[in-house]
Amino acid sequence: MLIVMEAGATTEQVAGVCDEISRMGLTAHPIPGALRTAIGVTGNKSQVDADKILSLVGVRDIIHVTQPYKLVSRDFYPENTVVDVGGVKIGGTEFVVMAGPCSVESRDQCMIIAETIAKFGGKIFRAGAFKPRTSPYSFQGLGEDGLKILAEVRTRFGLKIVTEAVDTETLPMVADYADIIQIGARNMQNYSLLKKAGKTTRPVLLKRGMAATLEEFLMAAEYILAEGNRQVILCERGVRTFADHTRNTLDLSAVPFVKRISHLPIVCDPSHGTGKRAKVIPLSRASIAVGADGLLVEVHHDPAKAWSDGPQSITLDMFGELMNTMRLIAPVVGRTCV
Amino acid sequence: MLIVMEAGATTEQVAGVCDEISRMGLTAHPIPGALRTAIGVTGNKSQVDADKILSLVGVRDIIHVTQPYKLVSRDFYPENTVVDVGGVKIGGTEFVVMAGPCSVESRDQCMIIAETIAKFGGKIFRAGAFKPRTSPYSFQGLGEDGLKILAEVRTRFGLKIVTEAVDTETLPMVADYADIIQIGARNMQNYSLLKKAGKTTRPVLLKRGMAATLEEFLMAAEYILAEGNRQVILCERGVRTFADHTRNTLDLSAVPFVKRISHLPIVCDPSHGTGKRAKVIPLSRASIAVGADGLLVEVHHDPAKAWSDGPQSITLDMFGELMNTMRLIAPVVGRTCV
Amino acid sequence: MLIVMEAGATTEQVAGVCDEISRMGLTAHPIPGALRTAIGVTGNKSQVDADKILSLVGVRDIIHVTQPYKLVSRDFYPENTVVDVGGVKIGGTEFVVMAGPCSVESRDQCMIIAETIAKFGGKIFRAGAFKPRTSPYSFQGLGEDGLKILAEVRTRFGLKIVTEAVDTETLPMVADYADIIQIGARNMQNYSLLKKAGKTTRPVLLKRGMAATLEEFLMAAEYILAEGNRQVILCERGVRTFADHTRNTLDLSAVPFVKRISHLPIVCDPSHGTGKRAKVIPLSRASIAVGADGLLVEVHHDPAKAWSDGPQSITLDMFGELMNTMRLIAPVVGRTCV
Amino acid sequence: MLIVMEAGATTEQVAGVCDEISRMGLTAHPIPGALRTAIGVTGNKSQVDADKILSLVGVRDIIHVTQPYKLVSRDFYPENTVVDVGGVKIGGTEFVVMAGPCSVESRDQCMIIAETIAKFGGKIFRAGAFKPRTSPYSFQGLGEDGLKILAEVRTRFGLKIVTEAVDTETLPMVADYADIIQIGARNMQNYSLLKKAGKTTRPVLLKRGMAATLEEFLMAAEYILAEGNRQVILCERGVRTFADHTRNTLDLSAVPFVKRISHLPIVCDPSHGTGKRAKVIPLSRASIAVGADGLLVEVHHDPAKAWSDGPQSITLDMFGELMNTMRLIAPVVGRTCV
Repeated sequence: MLIVMEAGATTEQVAGVCDEISRMGLTAHPIPGALRTAIGVTGNKSQVDADKILSLVGVRDIIHVTQPYKLVSRDFYPENTVVDVGGVKIGGTEFVVMAGPCSVESRDQCMIIAETIAKFGGKIFRAGAFKPRTSPYSFQGLGEDGLKILAEVRTRFGLKIVTEAVDTETLPMVADYADIIQIGARNMQNYSLLKKAGKTTRPVLLKRGMAATLEEFLMAAEYILAEGNRQVILCERGVRTFADHTRNTLDLSAVPFVKRISHLPIVCDPSHGTGKRAKVIPLSRASIAVGADGLLVEVHHDPAKAWSDGPQSITLDMFGELMNTMRLIAPVVGRTCV
Repeated sequence: MLIVMEAGATTEQVAGVCDEISRMGLTAHPIPGALRTAIGVTGNKSQVDADKILSLVGVRDIIHVTQPYKLVSRDFYPENTVVDVGGVKIGGTEFVVMAGPCSVESRDQCMIIAETIAKFGGKIFRAGAFKPRTSPYSFQGLGEDGLKILAEVRTRFGLKIVTEAVDTETLPMVADYADIIQIGARNMQNYSLLKKAGKTTRPVLLKRGMAATLEEFLMAAEYILAEGNRQVILCERGVRTFADHTRNTLDLSAVPFVKRISHLPIVCDPSHGTGKRAKVIPLSRASIAVGADGLLVEVHHDPAKAWSDGPQSITLDMFGELMNTMRLIAPVVGRTCV
Repeated sequence: MLIVMEAGATTEQVAGVCDEISRMGLTAHPIPGALRTAIGVTGNKSQVDADKILSLVGVRDIIHVTQPYKLVSRDFYPENTVVDVGGVKIGGTEFVVMAGPCSVESRDQCMIIAETIAKFGGKIFRAGAFKPRTSPYSFQGLGEDGLKILAEVRTRFGLKIVTEAVDTETLPMVADYADIIQIGARNMQNYSLLKKAGKTTRPVLLKRGMAATLEEFLMAAEYILAEGNRQVILCERGVRTFADHTRNTLDLSAVPFVKRISHLPIVCDPSHGTGKRAKVIPLSRASIAVGADGLLVEVHHDPAKAWSDGPQSITLDMFGELMNTMRLIAPVVGRTCV
Repeated sequence: MLIVMEAGATTEQVAGVCDEISRMGLTAHPIPGALRTAIGVTGNKSQVDADKILSLVGVRDIIHVTQPYKLVSRDFYPENTVVDVGGVKIGGTEFVVMAGPCSVESRDQCMIIAETIAKFGGKIFRAGAFKPRTSPYSFQGLGEDGLKILAEVRTRFGLKIVTEAVDTETLPMVADYADIIQIGARNMQNYSLLKKAGKTTRPVLLKRGMAATLEEFLMAAEYILAEGNRQVILCERGVRTFADHTRNTLDLSAVPFVKRISHLPIVCDPSHGTGKRAKVIPLSRASIAVGADGLLVEVHHDPAKAWSDGPQSITLDMFGELMNTMRLIAPVVGRTCV
């Protein structure tokens, strides 16, 4: 940690800060500069309370040299984490496609879509039984009835199931039915939900919040790992910017950054990342090319009749095209995609 | 609602969309343009499923003419809602200051701070007993012990209490002790929490999410009103932008916009809005001047020793100065501030 | 165009707006709704002055149905524009790599780098002789001496030259030496510069401004085309967001959007788009995969000694790796890359 | 300056960086930490080339302790700069209102508006004779004819004139007619224009770019001061964010920040900052309350007929109301407003 003093800080103020540092059991290294003094701090094995130091007289700013995350960091686990979802491995060489409708609407709808997904090589079926919706008047999901349909999809097509848990009350039920518990962007900093997911033994797919820095994203994952669950899959799904041509701005640079800092796998969601059906395939190509471990993509057999997210859902035919494209690009970037 | 067709949409496609509109029980009004056709839709008393229309062949975009919120809108309740917190009225002519430390740290800390707040004319005491923290390793709050201290503050100084509920499990306990239930920015779209707060009879202070549009902010409030609780106070606390000189960018234009669209009161939080102690008073002046109904401000008797948010907490003396300033500006903008 | 009236607009106000529309030589189509009235406007072959309508009493908002750009639009030129730079074609099937140092530093530096670029298959050499720098105390470029070095690069290695013009005074000189005139992100709305570039016969590479919407980006290009120069190459180079892990956020979704709306070619700049050397190759892969027509990339033989942008410049070896990767991906996405 | 090494940096790499620092004539102070080593650098009286250091092997990041601006900094000129515009003083105790239409449209229009502005106590008349417009097909200003009208306004009503220079060609002409040269947000990093303005003897009003950090804003001002012209007035006019209820997000926190760091005066532009007429007065109140030195505001006698920016122009009556409000608030915040 580096402490930056105000330009006009007195010698006494600098000494006062150094004393406080010593009282914390740390060592202070004053570095006088042309305009101001900086103070290097060493020995901070545990978390130092930056706010306390910032409040000392004469202190202008502090600069963190080490990052706040631990368990999610490659400094702690240098090897890639490969999340094993009943044999489907995410974070290894295989590029894994998770696909399905935004919402479970009916048994028939799921069976039609799941059949195609399985046929074209998707490994994991996605669909929401609990839906977080901006409006209280919008369809909120079929609940446990939806989860039962998903369980049937698994039995019938051998697809694994990823579905969202929206609160701590229903998380145990979701964990009973699902192979992967999804935590949505709006809940990325719902710490009670993260902790509860961390206490399960299910893999968790954690989506980046709309305004989350990578540090906040990784700290949210840290909440899950801190509870003992290391099976976390990160998901870049676009962030909110001034740009108005897409629903969100898919931040593909997050992929190589996360992979350098963290051992956790990361997948991309080009459906939410763009909000437009016609842009899903181009951004899927970009996602595999940039180094993502997989995709989360919305597919519907009749998007015009989808109960939610129809405009960003691709058709069954487009899904076939998507899988073909992924299979072509995968070997070029050192991946397999069956 | 207006439907915009693609430039190359055929006559058949336009007719197809008009048919679909009719099937929904609505009326279509085609408006041929130089380059493309638009279709006006009338009769939509209830919510139309925009996603379905967007998925029809030839449709490029749809444009909503009416807003999605209802109960929060002035179109439904033209008069200002005045939230009555045991005699302290928010949303009327009085400018109400809610102040206190970020976290309840100890009985002594709260008593020292509360005494000063009461002395200088603050009406509501704020402090967190449950703290949502970015890091799982940071102090998470004293829990029920903290709530008991807050109850003692109320008894001893006559201050009303606002404190945050972070999950549905602890919300009933918070509602038992608090006069106002705070829902934080990170939980603005935690719909289970919003619904549960909407089922209580306590006023709710709802903070704007870091990347929330005003429409999303008002829709989150709509969740609370839709459950029967109309006592909602909105809080602008800064949004996330590229600007790096403040922790967040306080969006003061939100105040006059919200007041035009909605009947709900809105207060500002210049502490989170800036993240810097020295900027709290200037932005408080701007908040009352722009038309806010009150402030939510962090105060600490010894910010250098605060367990959280020390750098943005003002001192007891500064709080006195703040209140004096508010009293000077209030009459100029048609307010009282006792 | 659609005019949205206020909820409380009177019949007289609606009539007043319709009258004004008629006076403009247009036709008004009132569409009464449950809460408010909308007025469709047709006949607007030429640009309507939206601001005038917005200022009429009772008008809440107007919504444009047609886009403001003309010459850049596919509606006017349906076929892809292929910019021919002395035989190097940008916007056709070939994926074209433009590479070189940020600044022309010396003859030797340029020759060393250019030799490698030519060897590995780069077609266009990029380097700045005039540099727009945030600080007035930073190196501002070698000026005409730099341009002469670039001319020698062309002669010696057969590479075409792209280099930035920073003002109208030096633009003619740049046009004399360069094959492509670059207009930088900071100057995207420097309309005098755009017009002057539009009056030359040189192809122009126009970079997207840091906070430019796609509409503004295309309108800036429209300035060039409106002066008679249709040889414009667009360049996505990242936009400014709250995300702090990259210098800018590369908005790859811009590529398929621009290609749908406009006939102009678009290339990506992963060097400025990320600001980090190690992220240039992953984002280059994503750029070709998403559908870009080429790359603009910073290369230096000794980045540690580069006078500007060293941290984002890739080494000569990395450039070789980059070209190999592009060659592998190109055929998969229907491109060639020699 | 602080250099942060990679977690895995070797002792040799640390030594290599220290050697390089010495070669630059500076002193290195290694600070070994738990996870990584930091290196404090002292002696950097002149600008150090950060990019070179960042490119050394093992270096992860560098952190600047001193800011890059000099002449604009309070460290160099501790006292407030008061810009004297022919007797109207900006940056002193007086709160100065600059008002007028977006564009000079005609002699009559300017005279009508100027008369009211003078009557209500405005001191400076604003209106554009050269207009930077997003579309090449929009009205681009009356040019010198407009400037002549402005000169007449000065003679007739005793108002000082602020008007925009959009390029280096027309800047001398603008400087001949105007009392203050305005440089617009789109040109904030048009360095040729800044330098040319810095060579004049006219005060310069510099608007913040739509995506400019405060550091970039102050560095743009540094360009003007570095040429010898210290008479710079800064202008906060809103930045671009995801928020869609205003044209821009007025960042009022910029005012107290700029005033702490810099000696230059700063005014606010609530017209561009909100883009909506009804929000201009509330945000003007907030601007004076937050500590701004003045306002730049658009006024039109008939906004419905304004050639540009009608929707954000206030009427003559509203201008009277605005001035009355400013006069009420001014003494409360230690200002005068005649």
